[in-house]
Amino acid sequence: MGRRASAAAETLRNASADDRTDAIKAMAAAIRRHADAILSANARDMAGATAHHDRLRLDEDRLEAIAAALETVSGLPDPVGEEMARWQRPNGLDIARVRVPIGVIGMIYESRPNVTADAAAICVRSGNAIILRSGSEALQSSLAIHAALAEGLAEATLPEDAVQIIPTADRAAVGTLLGGLNGAVDLIIPRGGRSLVERVSKDARVPVLGHLEGVCHTYVHESADPDMAVAIVRNAKLRRVSVCGATETVLIDRAAATRLLPLIAAALQGCELRGDAESRAVTPMAEAGEADWHTEYLAPVLSVRTVAGLDEAVHHIARYGTGHTEAIVASDAAAAEQFLDRVDSAMVMWNASTQFADGGEFGFGAEIGIATGRLHARGPVGPEQLTTFKYMVRGTGQVRA
Amino acid sequence: MGRRASAAAETLRNASADDRTDAIKAMAAAIRRHADAILSANARDMAGATAHHDRLRLDEDRLEAIAAALETVSGLPDPVGEEMARWQRPNGLDIARVRVPIGVIGMIYESRPNVTADAAAICVRSGNAIILRSGSEALQSSLAIHAALAEGLAEATLPEDAVQIIPTADRAAVGTLLGGLNGAVDLIIPRGGRSLVERVSKDARVPVLGHLEGVCHTYVHESADPDMAVAIVRNAKLRRVSVCGATETVLIDRAAATRLLPLIAAALQGCELRGDAESRAVTPMAEAGEADWHTEYLAPVLSVRTVAGLDEAVHHIARYGTGHTEAIVASDAAAAEQFLDRVDSAMVMWNASTQFADGGEFGFGAEIGIATGRLHARGPVGPEQLTTFKYMVRGTGQVRA
Repeated sequence: MGRRASAAAETLRNASADDRTDAIKAMAAAIRRHADAILSANARDMAGATAHHDRLRLDEDRLEAIAAALETVSGLPDPVGEEMARWQRPNGLDIARVRVPIGVIGMIYESRPNVTADAAAICVRSGNAIILRSGSEALQSSLAIHAALAEGLAEATLPEDAVQIIPTADRAAVGTLLGGLNGAVDLIIPRGGRSLVERVSKDARVPVLGHLEGVCHTYVHESADPDMAVAIVRNAKLRRVSVCGATETVLIDRAAATRLLPLIAAALQGCELRGDAESRAVTPMAEAGEADWHTEYLAPVLSVRTVAGLDEAVHHIARYGTGHTEAIVASDAAAAEQFLDRVDSAMVMWNASTQFADGGEFGFGAEIGIATGRLHARGPVGPEQLTTFKYMVRGTGQVRA
Repeated sequence: MGRRASAAAETLRNASADDRTDAIKAMAAAIRRHADAILSANARDMAGATAHHDRLRLDEDRLEAIAAALETVSGLPDPVGEEMARWQRPNGLDIARVRVPIGVIGMIYESRPNVTADAAAICVRSGNAIILRSGSEALQSSLAIHAALAEGLAEATLPEDAVQIIPTADRAAVGTLLGGLNGAVDLIIPRGGRSLVERVSKDARVPVLGHLEGVCHTYVHESADPDMAVAIVRNAKLRRVSVCGATETVLIDRAAATRLLPLIAAALQGCELRGDAESRAVTPMAEAGEADWHTEYLAPVLSVRTVAGLDEAVHHIARYGTGHTEAIVASDAAAAEQFLDRVDSAMVMWNASTQFADGGEFGFGAEIGIATGRLHARGPVGPEQLTTFKYMVRGTGQVRA
């Protein structure tokens, strides 16, 4: 499997951008053509599933959305071969830094069948081969989607091996993939719950791009516009509570707490609040314990802490944050710029909801995940982030002194 | 040590570019001021050393070169805070990708004492804290250089903990550093022989930037200008045989072998040639075995292979190369561009010596090493390559639909 992926990666890398575009379009068409087979495979998965029913379920509308997403990816700019920089040296050497695909990506995910198609399309767009490892609950759906994708690739001029899937639910296969398949796998991307990502990060012998969890913060500065603070906190927490960019903790300036906290609490109907003593003195709510500041609830629960000011907010985030996304709501531009500067998360925002932490919202067209490590790519990982570069040096016979 | 490095990294990151510049200048001045102490520490190392004498030895000239190199780094552009890209979304969000330091770098090296100063300066320039682990043979020299650097940092306004050194030759300390010091270390850079780099790559629990070896190729295309081919091969092999960018294998087109190989061999006096049967039929030389194509000689030895053309050269490199640096000598521009495109090494060159594989020669001002992995940075690693980025998102109250 690794050898076939490496060979396919070389073909993909040397294919033209149009070849890759045509292949993704053919993949979309094949998904539509095989809708019946995919939906009946999904029905078998649903019959065997014990949980995650909504994430797992496909219907005609969702399948059409998957095909449409592939078409979107087919229309994204192709990053391969892009000249990122070019300069001349005094000795006449001409040096260009040029984007190239990473190579072979191993994708390990859980129960969302659409990831099979999305990840494959983003990898083909960026010239990478992919080896998919679907969660067992979604395996029949993933296999059926993969069969369609492979047919699409074969119809176009690209090798079917560019998109492979591990055909069993055998857990040992994950270990083999994490081992890198004898050097064939260049990067692992895990997408799923904390336990999956932890296992991948611990056992992988090749680089990993992903995030363990998103304990995201929204800091309401004393200069915040009240209406904006309420609207942003409500959206950051409640738009979708299960996404990694959802705010889990609100920090609020002491000077603004009495004025703003009651308004914020009133706007968060249906959301459990857990606060420190000062917040509770202003607005009745449950008591937050030390564990709350560390918790990614992914649920309608929000921890609330009063801070003395920007310094304390920045320190709280440095201590409890996970480097994902943090926002400040402030009218004071100098304070906001300080926050943007000092908070060292992948995404820092001023007067915007943390739920904008998303490749689509960033304009990347699609994302294969979000990374919170410090190397290679941080934040949303789209086609461009799945490339690396090489240097092309053009000379006229230069030798080194 | 890890905690102190993390705290220093935060201070360094928030310092101004001028602060970092002043600190590196103060480090240079302190090296000069403590020349006697450093040279006598070096004399103790030399007395205990069993090998590598020339790499280890310092004298007044070499120490002055170390101080001058620090001054060069102090004059390099500061990469921290640079806006790499900035764009607006249709909803008015303003998104900027901004360079930030990686954090804490662990540097593991062998017997060149100058690495202590070079690595420290490059890290300070890029806003990173560094933990140094010197080879035991150079330990006294490294400790003396480090003491001077720390004094320079303290005189400037930056924390001494920005540059720390493991004070013992205890091998267990390497394992602790490779374990990441409880999450404090963000990146390990090994610099030394193959066995060191292999151990680091195998045991590190954090990302590693480096290269195992450089089996570099120069391919002489049938269209090569004879004089240029001779000059480039001679320089690529013999300018310095011990550097990672030295050519180890020459590939030559069958159509040009009779004409060019005798000229090349004549220009390589003092270099042992080992060839395949076709090369030996043209020019008398030793026989190359399968192992030769895999070998980084780092010595005046060159393997020579005749190929049918560009395809075979590219395949040989894909099979035996280490992804470091490969060059083509050709007058045929189309063939050269094909080579640049298809060879997937960190550096690919046309009509230039592979010995240009160097951060200084690329215009980076300095390098902490050369990377052949596929993630984050490939090729020379200078201050810019020791940064990552974050996204700053500026809004006016946007919430996500």
